[in-house]
Amino acid sequence: MLDCLIHNAVVVTQDDDLGVLSAGMVGVRGDRIALVERNGGGTPPETREAVDAQGGILMPGLINAHTHLPMSLFRGLADDLPLAVWLNEHIFPAEARFITPDNVRTGTLLACAELLLGGVTTCCDGYFRENEVAAAVADSGLRAVLGQGVIDFPAPGVSDPADNVVHAAQFVKRWQGRNGRITPAIFCHSPYTCGGDTLAAAKQAARELGAPFLIHLAETRGEPALIAGAEGRSPTRYLDALGLLDSDTILVHGVWLDATDIQCIAASGAAMVHCPESNMKLASGAMPLPDLLAAGITVGLGTDGAASNNDLDLFGEMDTAAKLHKAVRRDPTVASAREVLAMATGEGARALGMGDRIGAVTPGKLADLVVVETRHPRLTPIYDPVSHLVYAARSSDVRDVMVGGQWAVRNRELLTFATAPVMADARAVAKQIQGAR
Amino acid sequence: MLDCLIHNAVVVTQDDDLGVLSAGMVGVRGDRIALVERNGGGTPPETREAVDAQGGILMPGLINAHTHLPMSLFRGLADDLPLAVWLNEHIFPAEARFITPDNVRTGTLLACAELLLGGVTTCCDGYFRENEVAAAVADSGLRAVLGQGVIDFPAPGVSDPADNVVHAAQFVKRWQGRNGRITPAIFCHSPYTCGGDTLAAAKQAARELGAPFLIHLAETRGEPALIAGAEGRSPTRYLDALGLLDSDTILVHGVWLDATDIQCIAASGAAMVHCPESNMKLASGAMPLPDLLAAGITVGLGTDGAASNNDLDLFGEMDTAAKLHKAVRRDPTVASAREVLAMATGEGARALGMGDRIGAVTPGKLADLVVVETRHPRLTPIYDPVSHLVYAARSSDVRDVMVGGQWAVRNRELLTFATAPVMADARAVAKQIQGAR
Repeated sequence: MLDCLIHNAVVVTQDDDLGVLSAGMVGVRGDRIALVERNGGGTPPETREAVDAQGGILMPGLINAHTHLPMSLFRGLADDLPLAVWLNEHIFPAEARFITPDNVRTGTLLACAELLLGGVTTCCDGYFRENEVAAAVADSGLRAVLGQGVIDFPAPGVSDPADNVVHAAQFVKRWQGRNGRITPAIFCHSPYTCGGDTLAAAKQAARELGAPFLIHLAETRGEPALIAGAEGRSPTRYLDALGLLDSDTILVHGVWLDATDIQCIAASGAAMVHCPESNMKLASGAMPLPDLLAAGITVGLGTDGAASNNDLDLFGEMDTAAKLHKAVRRDPTVASAREVLAMATGEGARALGMGDRIGAVTPGKLADLVVVETRHPRLTPIYDPVSHLVYAARSSDVRDVMVGGQWAVRNRELLTFATAPVMADARAVAKQIQGAR
Repeated sequence: MLDCLIHNAVVVTQDDDLGVLSAGMVGVRGDRIALVERNGGGTPPETREAVDAQGGILMPGLINAHTHLPMSLFRGLADDLPLAVWLNEHIFPAEARFITPDNVRTGTLLACAELLLGGVTTCCDGYFRENEVAAAVADSGLRAVLGQGVIDFPAPGVSDPADNVVHAAQFVKRWQGRNGRITPAIFCHSPYTCGGDTLAAAKQAARELGAPFLIHLAETRGEPALIAGAEGRSPTRYLDALGLLDSDTILVHGVWLDATDIQCIAASGAAMVHCPESNMKLASGAMPLPDLLAAGITVGLGTDGAASNNDLDLFGEMDTAAKLHKAVRRDPTVASAREVLAMATGEGARALGMGDRIGAVTPGKLADLVVVETRHPRLTPIYDPVSHLVYAARSSDVRDVMVGGQWAVRNRELLTFATAPVMADARAVAKQIQGAR
């Protein structure tokens, strides 16, 4: 007996063996996928709940591999500005004053609503006051890797930087094994905001705790000059020399990587996360994605925070990723729809160390599933569902979302919490932020 | 007495004097905007119909300045391929066999539904069998400049290329003054698919008829080598030498323009249309947009056909345009939200020679209006409505659309024709195209 059967679907499994089922069904038992089959015409399997996908696309839940959830409160706060002005005059002052525990909860829930309604079932977050982030994520129904921020400056919730690694380790201990959907992690902000001792100590703590280690790397061309003690070395080799690169390390951005950096990352087994829209909007540049893929590096896809995007829409991010690299390389065959959809599903799962559990519609994997409605002029006709998911579908086409066998979204409505009060709270915070300027 | 009053709106007028009204109302009488006011608290004006925007954004209808409407039938037919393979093995064969009058009507209606539902009230199209395109556009409620294609090869509806200019001139005569929403035009495909005599004759015909003249220009780096008789000259100077550049000429793409080309276009008064997503997807490159704007050239924004995008979503196109140039120039201040929204509204109107009638919410202009719903986590909070329209809103956020005082979309439903049979027809055509491969 199944708990749920989703039928009458085009199933984009993202499983190499199963491929795309042009007319199929997926059964769920408990928190797992129990059955993936073509429509047979035989007796349908017994199930407690049957959901008609009405010919829409059933796919694995998307994985947004880099977010700063509470920054949804700063969505559109400041745009089109030089990076230093944007950060120093807008983002940092707003963070210093308004990243309170209550506001972190509001911003996190707002972001979780956007993610779930847009077909994202897992995210990888790094921010401060991550304890409040984790509590909100736990309530939201989303699956997440959550990294407590480490930075060598006073930060929200950690007034003395000397405590930053200890604080992060406490966060990991507190959340390990506590909620099946939450994997606690340590997030060092970057090699230019954390000294070498902090970087090494934070990675050491993560290693001892068996926790993922996240870090921004090589985002801007000017980064080498910002790293004290690196003597203009490549930030990647600097991290490597500090012993930070291994298969539990998740590197974010990687816009400025040379061939040696790429070899170094590939050899270490570290994963990368690509945030094309944020890198474009902040004028950082474009990751050498085709070279990373050719080197066999696992690359996930992320939106970055809403302040530099200005959304958490992974469908839009897929579209941008597929197009950006074609223009940069002047080669229309790079960053294919297939490669990009893999980045947002299976490769993203591998990047987060969860490749065995999520990222594909495969029997035995966690039932993180999304139904995309395709009966719209904008999605008609369909020649290739994978092309459509990348080049034509948008987050607003998501109809249903299941995380670990539990419905989070049905018929475009979030079931896990009420969005209206969260939006009202977010508007009230925005009013305060506007008033303080 | 007004015919319609849209109230309780954030009005993004795109009118330099009126700016953004954070709480305003817009009145319509006949086909024109009659009133644009802040909420006053006095007696509301008398009106036959009152529409509550519920705090959403009221803006001018968007202008998609370059489309090939019937190519909606080829949406996602072939992706991630070298340009020659894409064109010669997929698009051209499909056009030769399937661009019948009936299919042109189906593809055009499908595209019009997508455009109107996505907040586009005016498009500028160039294709073959434009007579059938015009008949469908007339029925759809969309406003459009429609250019009959001219090419020195046998084309759908014009088997003998010797007739191409005569055929285009006949199309213009047939549609001039026939439908207030349709401006007929002549669309020469490009300087590399039309000989110099054809180009000169087509422009001469357009000039005599007082019709806009559209042409693809400088789309790929290799274009100079493709132009017979141009001896490797810049395509722009080649067109200029032929006398094709004037204020009634609309140039599309302009990816490969040098400083002299840009001066030449600026001096001629010709307008440009930027199609960033198509240029990216086909790996053509990025238009030098900041240089064109600095030279004072009027630049509109277009999606190009659905075969190379793969949608006609001008919200997504704005987002991409704003981000692409920041990455290319490594300057986050270029292609600001304000500049890009202008390209999709007032500057687009000017590019099409309609700057006096459309592109802004100004009393006396045609009532081409769009209401964008903003009560969604993805659009919360709002600091700056212009930023939101470019960086966060999507075509799916469009709630209501009015063209010339007539509702085309209310509450996300198209009122002008039934979309279900059009989508069914499009799916049937796609099945035939798939079967023929």
